[in-house]
Amino acid sequence: GSELLEQERSNSNVNVDALSHFLFTKEGIARKQRVLKVLQSEKVFDKSQNYFAGRIDRFETALARAKKLRQLAVRNGWTQDDRLTANELISEPGPYGLHESMFLITLRDQGNAEQHEKFLRPAEEYKYIGCYAQTELGHGSNVRGLETTATWNADDKTFTIHSPTLTASKWWIGSLGRTANHAVVMAQLIVNGKSLGPHPFVIQIRDMKTHEPLENIHVGDIGPKFGYNTMDNGFLLFNNFKVPHISMLARFSSVDPKTNKYSRPSSPSLIYGTLTWVRSTIVMQAGGVLARGVTIATRYCAVRRQFQDRDAPEWEKGENQVLNYTTVQIRLLPLLATTFALHFTGKGMMALYAASQKKMSQDVGKVGAPERGPGPEETHSGSDLLADLHATSCGLKSLASYTAVEGLEVCRRACGGHGYSSFSGIGPWYADYLPTATWEGDNYMLTQQVARYLLKSARSVLKGNEATNDTTAILSNFLSRQDTGAAFDILGNDSELVAAFAWRAAFLTFEALKHRDEQKKPWNSLLVDFYRLSRAHSQYMVVKNFYETLQASPDSSDGLDPETLGLMHKLFRLYALHTLEAEASEFYTSSAVTVRQIQLARTNAVMKLLEELRPHAVRLVDSWGFPDWQLDSSLGRYDGKVYEDMFHRASELNPLNRVTVDPYPDSPTLFKKNEASALKSKL
Amino acid sequence: GSELLEQERSNSNVNVDALSHFLFTKEGIARKQRVLKVLQSEKVFDKSQNYFAGRIDRFETALARAKKLRQLAVRNGWTQDDRLTANELISEPGPYGLHESMFLITLRDQGNAEQHEKFLRPAEEYKYIGCYAQTELGHGSNVRGLETTATWNADDKTFTIHSPTLTASKWWIGSLGRTANHAVVMAQLIVNGKSLGPHPFVIQIRDMKTHEPLENIHVGDIGPKFGYNTMDNGFLLFNNFKVPHISMLARFSSVDPKTNKYSRPSSPSLIYGTLTWVRSTIVMQAGGVLARGVTIATRYCAVRRQFQDRDAPEWEKGENQVLNYTTVQIRLLPLLATTFALHFTGKGMMALYAASQKKMSQDVGKVGAPERGPGPEETHSGSDLLADLHATSCGLKSLASYTAVEGLEVCRRACGGHGYSSFSGIGPWYADYLPTATWEGDNYMLTQQVARYLLKSARSVLKGNEATNDTTAILSNFLSRQDTGAAFDILGNDSELVAAFAWRAAFLTFEALKHRDEQKKPWNSLLVDFYRLSRAHSQYMVVKNFYETLQASPDSSDGLDPETLGLMHKLFRLYALHTLEAEASEFYTSSAVTVRQIQLARTNAVMKLLEELRPHAVRLVDSWGFPDWQLDSSLGRYDGKVYEDMFHRASELNPLNRVTVDPYPDSPTLFKKNEASALKSKL
Ligand SMILES: Cc1cc2nc3c(=O)[nH]c(=O)nc-3n(C[C@H](O)[C@H](O)[C@H](O)COP(=O)(O)OP(=O)(O)OC[C@H]3O[C@@H](n4cnc5c(N)ncnc54)[C@H](O)[C@@H]3O)c2cc1C
Ligand SMILES: Cc1cc2nc3c(=O)[nH]c(=O)nc-3n(C[C@H](O)[C@H](O)[C@H](O)COP(=O)(O)OP(=O)(O)OC[C@H]3O[C@@H](n4cnc5c(N)ncnc54)[C@H](O)[C@@H]3O)c2cc1C
Repeated sequence: GSELLEQERSNSNVNVDALSHFLFTKEGIARKQRVLKVLQSEKVFDKSQNYFAGRIDRFETALARAKKLRQLAVRNGWTQDDRLTANELISEPGPYGLHESMFLITLRDQGNAEQHEKFLRPAEEYKYIGCYAQTELGHGSNVRGLETTATWNADDKTFTIHSPTLTASKWWIGSLGRTANHAVVMAQLIVNGKSLGPHPFVIQIRDMKTHEPLENIHVGDIGPKFGYNTMDNGFLLFNNFKVPHISMLARFSSVDPKTNKYSRPSSPSLIYGTLTWVRSTIVMQAGGVLARGVTIATRYCAVRRQFQDRDAPEWEKGENQVLNYTTVQIRLLPLLATTFALHFTGKGMMALYAASQKKMSQDVGKVGAPERGPGPEETHSGSDLLADLHATSCGLKSLASYTAVEGLEVCRRACGGHGYSSFSGIGPWYADYLPTATWEGDNYMLTQQVARYLLKSARSVLKGNEATNDTTAILSNFLSRQDTGAAFDILGNDSELVAAFAWRAAFLTFEALKHRDEQKKPWNSLLVDFYRLSRAHSQYMVVKNFYETLQASPDSSDGLDPETLGLMHKLFRLYALHTLEAEASEFYTSSAVTVRQIQLARTNAVMKLLEELRPHAVRLVDSWGFPDWQLDSSLGRYDGKVYEDMFHRASELNPLNRVTVDPYPDSPTLFKKNEASALKSKL
Repeated sequence: GSELLEQERSNSNVNVDALSHFLFTKEGIARKQRVLKVLQSEKVFDKSQNYFAGRIDRFETALARAKKLRQLAVRNGWTQDDRLTANELISEPGPYGLHESMFLITLRDQGNAEQHEKFLRPAEEYKYIGCYAQTELGHGSNVRGLETTATWNADDKTFTIHSPTLTASKWWIGSLGRTANHAVVMAQLIVNGKSLGPHPFVIQIRDMKTHEPLENIHVGDIGPKFGYNTMDNGFLLFNNFKVPHISMLARFSSVDPKTNKYSRPSSPSLIYGTLTWVRSTIVMQAGGVLARGVTIATRYCAVRRQFQDRDAPEWEKGENQVLNYTTVQIRLLPLLATTFALHFTGKGMMALYAASQKKMSQDVGKVGAPERGPGPEETHSGSDLLADLHATSCGLKSLASYTAVEGLEVCRRACGGHGYSSFSGIGPWYADYLPTATWEGDNYMLTQQVARYLLKSARSVLKGNEATNDTTAILSNFLSRQDTGAAFDILGNDSELVAAFAWRAAFLTFEALKHRDEQKKPWNSLLVDFYRLSRAHSQYMVVKNFYETLQASPDSSDGLDPETLGLMHKLFRLYALHTLEAEASEFYTSSAVTVRQIQLARTNAVMKLLEELRPHAVRLVDSWGFPDWQLDSSLGRYDGKVYEDMFHRASELNPLNRVTVDPYPDSPTLFKKNEASALKSKL
């Protein structure tokens, strides 16, 4: 395979380094190299048994790695970015995962000064190891339906935490199963017999010395999952368990221990800010998540040869690289384009988020008045930007995570039989990533929030209000041109291609509005339309972000050379036209394009782009800069030594080959010899 | 959950038993009950540790089960059908898998009488345990590219089997890794220095007593996979390994040991018959494979409640069953319809196959003349039916296995977070089924064969030849009406709905023909069009089979009562309209329907069908008749005790909960206590 990849690389002049810098900045790349070196020098991070080990061994190794990582972070004075980079390189969820994210964030954001002292400090020093326990066996999406109760006891100034039913059991809680000794628990606060909705409590659940569960607490691991098996997702039940007053995180709401009065002085907009931020990072990561699969499949399909081309000239004897088959290209190259599209969109979202945070902090005091409702769709005035950002992040989280999930599986299948081996590195990665489609808002449900926001925006535009952001701008534009109609030159003009996506999204918005406001259709009967609407709006956002990033490139300091930029423009068109074609019927019911244009896009434009991009595929994936150590894939090796690596892993590293069976049905002996455990790496 | 499922069942009058009989016949259902009882009484088939065990333990258990199954089959005098039923109920691939299928079939079909005596008898008695070793590390789809050689030695009348390169290593071979002591090996036959293409050889690879590999053979398991881990897929390398003359399976071709002459007297049409048969069974099974996921998700979504309906009246307090949300319905109910569609199509295929075999045996001597080419697309005269069947089976195998694969994942996601638990029973099942998309012809590549056949048929029709089968009939019909155009009443008339599918397939066929024959486009540039064409033709076949089965029902002995039949008609329309809508753009570029019709289908017809079918969903999945033991799913339990079962498995059966960790980063201890192995079930 080596010669084939060398040949690929020499046949393209994409400037890999420049493109890498454009994607990740020089500092980001240097950081990756530095952290990688540290990790590779520690035996515990050796990956060679990862694909073989069973759940308990994998969990044990993951715990050892988590500990070592923490030690390295302290010893080397790693920044937050360094730590995230290390996690990316290791590429497996670890038992400190929720401690280091949601537990610390929640303590920080929702605790007051006293609680920071009491909980956050020891947590930062890993004396307290925590998790975030919101979801229950019976309730996930519907947080208001949680059943765990926290009843205020006026007499002794405590809360009683209780799980009244089996379905009240906390469930799915990362790091809880075996690792955590503390949990942030969301429970229905009850004061004076009155239920006040879910609130966060910090609760010790295991003994600090023995690590055994405290009395009246039933806690454990929820069992094996499709992936994520290096993480101990857990369950947790309370039997009238008392905790002191300080346990309730009190930055936004509290119970006064003297008066027993509940108060909720502050606005929860910060919390929505956090949710928006989390979703934006999911969008940001989706490009890279998918790029791993695309890198592996593209390299392998350049190394894999199968059949001679039917129309090849007589003298061209060798078998064809399968990357040359158009049915392989149509699966991989649009996904290659998608990796960049999502990456730029994520970057755009993060920038908008930063801008909105800045604006918010300038506005302090102005927003967040106590009368505000619970959802950002009811915000007003200065927080318009946040509302737009919130809705956009919901729609894009849904689109981006599905795109990555589905794309990874397309990549795996494109590798034929070998894609099914764990050594392909795609399957295990896919399995671990999969829950992203469900958590932080189920991908289907999130689209209702997008629709709600778009309907609201459309109503405002219909009332004649001036456009205040991009969403209202495209809706206004649609209204003003609706009658004259639009005929976008999607094949000749990139900005019109973007405009066609905007047009379709606006069309669907007003259609949905008609159904809801004029025809008074029930909300539930419109969910399918809402899903489509959210998808349309989000695809428009992606196309727009991709386009604008390229427009800005020549002016930016780390801009691309004209040739590479030209290729990026082709990738943009491929992403946009391929998407347009897949969603064709919405594009012409909205009269954004004609049937003829779609046919031309399908049979000419897209096929031509595949042909033009094909020679650059390997270099383009190279620019994502995944070290082999990170990919841990036989098929995706940088040097193309695919078969050697498959063989080595199967023949040398595979513990099953240390077992000799007795194959005869009438013999009760199963294993004549079993030396498999000898291969288990010592930590 | 129990009350909810009871309520569902009492709100529908679908006659579950009658529908089950219609699907599986009374005998089939009785067989299932009988075999189930036997299996459940044997401890080795206890499934309770399946989801927890690591690879080596799972393989060990699978071997124990395979042995026991064989003993049971002998003891109870089980028929082939009984054995298949047992495998379905156990639902995991086992180490005798390839012995019992491809090894025995190949010996039987391709061996001569002497070889039957020498190889088949001991194989049937499980003295020889075998596998089918065709694929190599470097070649799978392209069988002619295999590198393993079998060189005829005229001097000592032997063949030398050799693997000249690393990529010549056999790879992926089921049952080879640890279990088999024999293999059917496909190798390039070389006689007198002349390469004669791949031929099958029966070769002993392990010692009959010690079970160690024979000298000059390197064999082992290829390592962990995305699924299928109870099977030992293996690799195999030969170092100039000599085998006697009898090793070459000689029914269709042979080397004369006296003259050293190679001869190939018989036609390989039987082999193509086998391939067609295998693909037909894949189509047949796809409905049931998908139905497992649909059963689990439908039951769970009827038990799961989340949120109140936004438009629900004040007094309706409880949370909504998630099956009531239209975004859940639009995912599950079309798939429910698909299960029946695929099942009836599979049945139709099997019936056609049986008819063609009958015809073939009547034609013996007439077909199979020595001048025949290698592929059925070049057959003539009486084998027209076989050619049609072969092409249809290729296209349907591709469509059906993708539909099942993708549908299972849709079902899993519809279950929200709990779908990700192994206890959902969907993920592990999906992972084991997945390779069906790749083996027996990669799903993308198979479509080229369909296209080739359709192009050939179209050429024949263009020449004015009379239609000889359904394919040529729809092509002729299209040609004759092409100019006047068609406007099918897809919303009002079921047979016109079928006709619209036929029209679109015919349209795409002639388009493809134009590209190939008139515009002389290279084959490779048309692969994407061919893929679409095959998909269109196969969807037509499914719609047609579904429709015709329902048309025939009132006249058949086990026909359905009118009410159930009425529901089945709705399922037919849902499948057809939902598919049509998803492929909308092809339907109107071909002028089979108008934009307005599609819009109506989407917003009215499909949504209305969802509403009408919703109350019957649980009973409809009940009719598939999966015992709980087979599904092994907390979410899909017949009695709806979802949460109790999840909790039981997590809290009582989960070995990780026997481990106590030391969570602090600075402590080198990982597990303070580990009693996990105590739970390992004894075989
Ligand atoms: C690997 C993993 C790790 C996790 N880690 C944590 C953790 O650390 N802490 C924590 O608190 N939680 C955690 N979770 C839980 C996760 O947040 C929830 O699973 C997620 O929010 C989905 O909720 P659910 O499971 O209740 O889905 P449900 O709401 O039950 O969804 C079931 C189905 O119903 C549909 N549906 C539900 N309501 C509606 C509606 N109103 N309209 C239309 N359709 C609807 C959904 O689309 C879905 O198809 C984790 C989950 C997983 C899988
Ligand atoms: C679980 C499992 C069990 C198996 N068991 C057995 C067994 O028991 N015995 C055995 O012999 N084999 C077995 N196989 C092997 C299996 O038959 C092959 O993997 C399968 O035939 C696919 O071939 P491949 O892997 O070479 O794919 P490739 O042909 O390498 O395909 C790679 C990619 O190239 C594309 N491609 C290749 N050629 C063309 C073309 N001409 N035109 C367009 N696109 C093309 C494909 O679509 C695919 O995307 C097994 C495989 C699996 C996964």
